[in-house]
Amino acid sequence: MSKKPEMSELVAFCKSRGFAYQSSEIYGGMSAIYDYGHYGTLLKNNIRDAWWKNMVQEHAEVLALDSAIFMAPLAWKASGHLDNFDDPQVDCKTCKARLRADHLLEEFGISADKQPLDFINQELDKLKKENKLKCPVCGGCDLTPAKRFSLMVKSNIGAPTDELTDENVVYLRPETCGGIYLNYKNIIDSLHPKLPFGVAQVGKAFRNEIIARQFIFRTREFEQMEMQYFLRPEQMVEKFAAWKADRWQWYLNFGIQAEKIRWYKHEKLAHYASDAYDIEYDFQFLGGFKEIEGIHARGDWDLSQHGKFSGCDLSYTDPYTNEKFIPHIMETSVGLGRLFLMFLDQAYTKESVNDGERLVLKLDPRLSPIKVAVFPLLRNKPELVALAQDVAKRLRPHYQLEFDDHGNIGKRYRRQDEIGTPLTITVDFDSLTNQDVTVRERDSMQQTRVSLAKLEEYLHEKLGL
Amino acid sequence: MSKKPEMSELVAFCKSRGFAYQSSEIYGGMSAIYDYGHYGTLLKNNIRDAWWKNMVQEHAEVLALDSAIFMAPLAWKASGHLDNFDDPQVDCKTCKARLRADHLLEEFGISADKQPLDFINQELDKLKKENKLKCPVCGGCDLTPAKRFSLMVKSNIGAPTDELTDENVVYLRPETCGGIYLNYKNIIDSLHPKLPFGVAQVGKAFRNEIIARQFIFRTREFEQMEMQYFLRPEQMVEKFAAWKADRWQWYLNFGIQAEKIRWYKHEKLAHYASDAYDIEYDFQFLGGFKEIEGIHARGDWDLSQHGKFSGCDLSYTDPYTNEKFIPHIMETSVGLGRLFLMFLDQAYTKESVNDGERLVLKLDPRLSPIKVAVFPLLRNKPELVALAQDVAKRLRPHYQLEFDDHGNIGKRYRRQDEIGTPLTITVDFDSLTNQDVTVRERDSMQQTRVSLAKLEEYLHEKLGL
Repeated sequence: MSKKPEMSELVAFCKSRGFAYQSSEIYGGMSAIYDYGHYGTLLKNNIRDAWWKNMVQEHAEVLALDSAIFMAPLAWKASGHLDNFDDPQVDCKTCKARLRADHLLEEFGISADKQPLDFINQELDKLKKENKLKCPVCGGCDLTPAKRFSLMVKSNIGAPTDELTDENVVYLRPETCGGIYLNYKNIIDSLHPKLPFGVAQVGKAFRNEIIARQFIFRTREFEQMEMQYFLRPEQMVEKFAAWKADRWQWYLNFGIQAEKIRWYKHEKLAHYASDAYDIEYDFQFLGGFKEIEGIHARGDWDLSQHGKFSGCDLSYTDPYTNEKFIPHIMETSVGLGRLFLMFLDQAYTKESVNDGERLVLKLDPRLSPIKVAVFPLLRNKPELVALAQDVAKRLRPHYQLEFDDHGNIGKRYRRQDEIGTPLTITVDFDSLTNQDVTVRERDSMQQTRVSLAKLEEYLHEKLGL
Repeated sequence: MSKKPEMSELVAFCKSRGFAYQSSEIYGGMSAIYDYGHYGTLLKNNIRDAWWKNMVQEHAEVLALDSAIFMAPLAWKASGHLDNFDDPQVDCKTCKARLRADHLLEEFGISADKQPLDFINQELDKLKKENKLKCPVCGGCDLTPAKRFSLMVKSNIGAPTDELTDENVVYLRPETCGGIYLNYKNIIDSLHPKLPFGVAQVGKAFRNEIIARQFIFRTREFEQMEMQYFLRPEQMVEKFAAWKADRWQWYLNFGIQAEKIRWYKHEKLAHYASDAYDIEYDFQFLGGFKEIEGIHARGDWDLSQHGKFSGCDLSYTDPYTNEKFIPHIMETSVGLGRLFLMFLDQAYTKESVNDGERLVLKLDPRLSPIKVAVFPLLRNKPELVALAQDVAKRLRPHYQLEFDDHGNIGKRYRRQDEIGTPLTITVDFDSLTNQDVTVRERDSMQQTRVSLAKLEEYLHEKLGL
């Protein structure tokens, strides 16, 4: 197995090959926000669609939703986010760096997870007295005490004035699931689903992360794919196990190697939770296994809280027994940007070939940005170009396709390898007489002559699309 | 042709059938923000995917992009949004309603479009003196003078403090095209496209609309689909005409009747623009033709401004002549929510049938939320249910599908008609012996026996998918 890339190599690859750019780069950049380029957008859309097809189309009992980013502020009081969704921040007075106090303590083996601010500041003071505490950016010792910094991003949308005041502040959602809970009653009233049922959505969420220097892994603006599964409490154990197995298998189905992912069981649970696991992927460039997906049994906390704060009855009435109760919820929640990074990392391969080394993205063909590339062998032979264009025109309605007549064939193969195109088609002089073309496979580099009459059929079979 | 629905009827339909809900409804709602329910999300995704497939997959020279909602604030200075993107606001002191001053004047036949605030207030004062000016909400006469209200939505993302101050304010994009201009250089450097080429993206945008009581037509949070086409100035006339024709045809291809859309030519152009047209759709429930898409020739304004404000060279170097210049831009910009409303309005049909009246959504099958519904004739006959489930299982990997065994067949047909499902499959007793099923078409209501062995082939042909 080839060595996986360092972060700097992956960042450079993403920028130079049109996968991802620093946002607003010409203006100096927006910190911890990224834009997806041509191939990156196509790859990300394919990951999104693969998740969506599996979650919504293939699970009969899972419904779709697309709720707005902006929600009633009281909903974030009910969910606990306004009171508890924050990180302990320390500022370096020398270089003005903003630092996570819990990360500073972790360096000394002190866990500050879910600890009160007092505890954190006591531990920081001890380290300061021992002259051990230094700013990891500039090495200075002049650090402020820790304070709570809310991760909630504020806005003034819908406000009657241009100003942002305490009265008119609203929030950008820090996670998408809230919109599912707030629509639970509308979904029940309009679609009458029976328990157990799920509601899935994909959308943007926003967190005012204090520091974020992990490329696309941790960004202030990001995309989540979440599914909230409503059930009777006595169904939780069985369904939780079933969804764990289901989600694990999804990764394997899309080519993630079993040894690159693992389960992390949460030992400290929120008071309302009965079980919580993460799926972690071994991001070598981030130093090891990191969370990509959470699967959590959340009890009836969410609907109970929103019922209490909204004054609406969010209970479920069993259609057979007329029993009334608040459904329990299990969720699966995954970051689309993290999946993008994971699939890129997994696929990124440098390997020896006859004429040196090649870089190839060994993506599942369903995820590849470009499915097929079409080449005329020579660009200055009009009859080759015409036939190749004809082939491209036939295939374009079916596949995201590239036509390339630049440089020699070897270079064109390398370029398609680097962006993960599973199949390339070359039109050569024999094609004109025999009405066939050469189809080359990305991973094996094997070449096969395929008749034009059977080309669609051949591609369809090879791509599994 | 059947009469099109009133707004109240469409709003009620969307809510009761799971297409769209008022956002945060259980908390009293967020004004001018909507959530899409199960069928609405599927319909909206299908419209998005149809636009995307046409724009990115079928146009070889159009590239994909997905840029972030948050951009460097200076970019909005460069684009003119911070100085000029506002509406004149009047408040009613009696009922606290927020009113558009230009809309108040329009009622008296006075056009305030692009007029200075002084002109607007002079005209308002005249009407006040004549006792003609009244609040359209409460009828009161005590209205404030007009003031400029910025449509730009503010935020504090990335700020070093929780507070929103003038120093740390950032903006949510009011349109998606800005992200395309800011990535122009990265796109050129990484993908080396030759003029003319386009860059397309779909994403959320935000505007602090003063009043917005037009259902999904005008919302503060909305989705745009934009394509910016970069070209040499001398290519503009030809390409502008070609894209106009292309976009018009797209609507016809998806079943919009030619008499329901029209061109609106802008007479007053921005100083940098050379031509600007809108495609308008006849929204009867909004009082007539309203903009759904804009096709504008924008000159080199956008890249020149961002070049100037960012200090980056955004010129293009012709690979053959080495000539350097700023490309010109034409754009097509469409609101996804508006297309959603348009397709729903166009499809919404009440018609007489044998047993009374039916409501049917005559959507193009490619846009229908559900492609196929499968029914066992009777739910208490296990052999019928088993065969129907078997059929559903076979088809589910290919189509967004519903299985329904509730109520009589007639009611199930009506339910699928109402959500626009083009084909329904019924498994009856004959199916058990003959291995065939009844396929019913939504619009003609014709029923055909189709053998199970040829079912996929038949559906594929009928659905055009």
